[in-house]
Amino acid sequence: MKIFTTRRRIEFADTDMGGIVHFSRFFVFMESAEHEFLESLGSSVHFSIGEKEYGWPRVDASCTFHSPARYGDDLQIQVSVTHRGRRSMRYEVAFSVDGRSIATGRISSVCCQLNHPDGLKAVPIPAKLKARLSST
Amino acid sequence: MKIFTTRRRIEFADTDMGGIVHFSRFFVFMESAEHEFLESLGSSVHFSIGEKEYGWPRVDASCTFHSPARYGDDLQIQVSVTHRGRRSMRYEVAFSVDGRSIATGRISSVCCQLNHPDGLKAVPIPAKLKARLSST
Amino acid sequence: MKIFTTRRRIEFADTDMGGIVHFSRFFVFMESAEHEFLESLGSSVHFSIGEKEYGWPRVDASCTFHSPARYGDDLQIQVSVTHRGRRSMRYEVAFSVDGRSIATGRISSVCCQLNHPDGLKAVPIPAKLKARLSST
Amino acid sequence: MKIFTTRRRIEFADTDMGGIVHFSRFFVFMESAEHEFLESLGSSVHFSIGEKEYGWPRVDASCTFHSPARYGDDLQIQVSVTHRGRRSMRYEVAFSVDGRSIATGRISSVCCQLNHPDGLKAVPIPAKLKARLSST
Repeated sequence: MKIFTTRRRIEFADTDMGGIVHFSRFFVFMESAEHEFLESLGSSVHFSIGEKEYGWPRVDASCTFHSPARYGDDLQIQVSVTHRGRRSMRYEVAFSVDGRSIATGRISSVCCQLNHPDGLKAVPIPAKLKARLSST
Repeated sequence: MKIFTTRRRIEFADTDMGGIVHFSRFFVFMESAEHEFLESLGSSVHFSIGEKEYGWPRVDASCTFHSPARYGDDLQIQVSVTHRGRRSMRYEVAFSVDGRSIATGRISSVCCQLNHPDGLKAVPIPAKLKARLSST
Repeated sequence: MKIFTTRRRIEFADTDMGGIVHFSRFFVFMESAEHEFLESLGSSVHFSIGEKEYGWPRVDASCTFHSPARYGDDLQIQVSVTHRGRRSMRYEVAFSVDGRSIATGRISSVCCQLNHPDGLKAVPIPAKLKARLSST
Repeated sequence: MKIFTTRRRIEFADTDMGGIVHFSRFFVFMESAEHEFLESLGSSVHFSIGEKEYGWPRVDASCTFHSPARYGDDLQIQVSVTHRGRRSMRYEVAFSVDGRSIATGRISSVCCQLNHPDGLKAVPIPAKLKARLSST
């Protein structure tokens, strides 16, 4: 399985009074990495097919923290697909700085039609996107 | 002029590596205080009259920082109306901890119809709300 | 086992363009609830015994999302201790609005001496605090 | 006077339920742009000369909002020095997307010795850094 890699620089506002990145920020970093991954496939976290609008609400997120990251650190972020379901995707996101493991996160997202008559509704991943996701 | 007073406790996630509240958080604190002020008048930051939906987008915000606030501080927040326009409001927000001045902010908000045929459109403050605002 | 309960009102800045609370905010809410729980025992997330300084860095956090929370919602937050270790604590945090389950989170924190000669070091929970934690 | 330019992509977590970037985020964007500007001069927002540690706490920040920015927007950020004092700097930060003006912010920062015997103390900008700042 291929790994999608991106980076981001730790900003001052990412830190807390402990002098390190606040743990809640890693969930924002994961989400943005997931979005960049979808864009790398030519898709998006919000997309339309005809009049149907789709999105990927997350149903579960977790993160294990190994070592602190600090202001100015150049965070390497590696996204792996760990499960491709009919309606959902699971990702693992590994964070490191200069080869030192910082944190490992997991995120589960469900493909939903956002404007379904029943409201938000989990639906099978559209075929074209599914094909692209299968190639990763 | 009356002053509307509220409080909030500084949380760990409000702080940065300098050991103090990150300056951007005061803008969030100001916004929430403005919303509480509107609610104290029986209104809201989003409201409807018939089919018209209204809101208060802000056009200007500033803050001067006098002294740092820290984790656990009990922040006193005083909202004063400094200008009542036909379509806009200006507020001053004074932050203190135990009588020590922390910061003074200013915020300008414009009454807008959110679902106007022209899109977001500045409109005169509806009469009933204007009367309530004038009583403050 | 007793449950520690607290509340918070959803603020505008907690929301995202999906119209609901951004999922990363629940991790901030969990952390603040953990801190309030420790304070309810007469302790704190940072404390000193003699010259030793202690803290509770988190090593793992997760959250499952059941139903969205929205601006203005009065979030009920229930903290349960699910594990008391020699050096660590595990909590479950249940979020609900008017009896509707919103999310369930879990957090693991390790008692550390912050100013140990070896740097940050996991240590047994001090006896007096351990006694208080055991009474919950 | 030269203008320092940087960019950033709007992330999902930058948005609020109004569907646009939350106004408090522009203050984070300004701060990070100021830091990048200092780095472009070979300095940093925190630096040491001998045993003295220096920083640039901000004393005032403001922003005027012209037009909303949205998820995915490629924000262009232009930093101009508008005042060089003996102990302080003032910056203007212009935000635009595809040539459309989004917001204009202003920030005032004071050069402080962080570990002065009197605590945090405003000091003249060190000569070498002052020379670099004057060349901008």
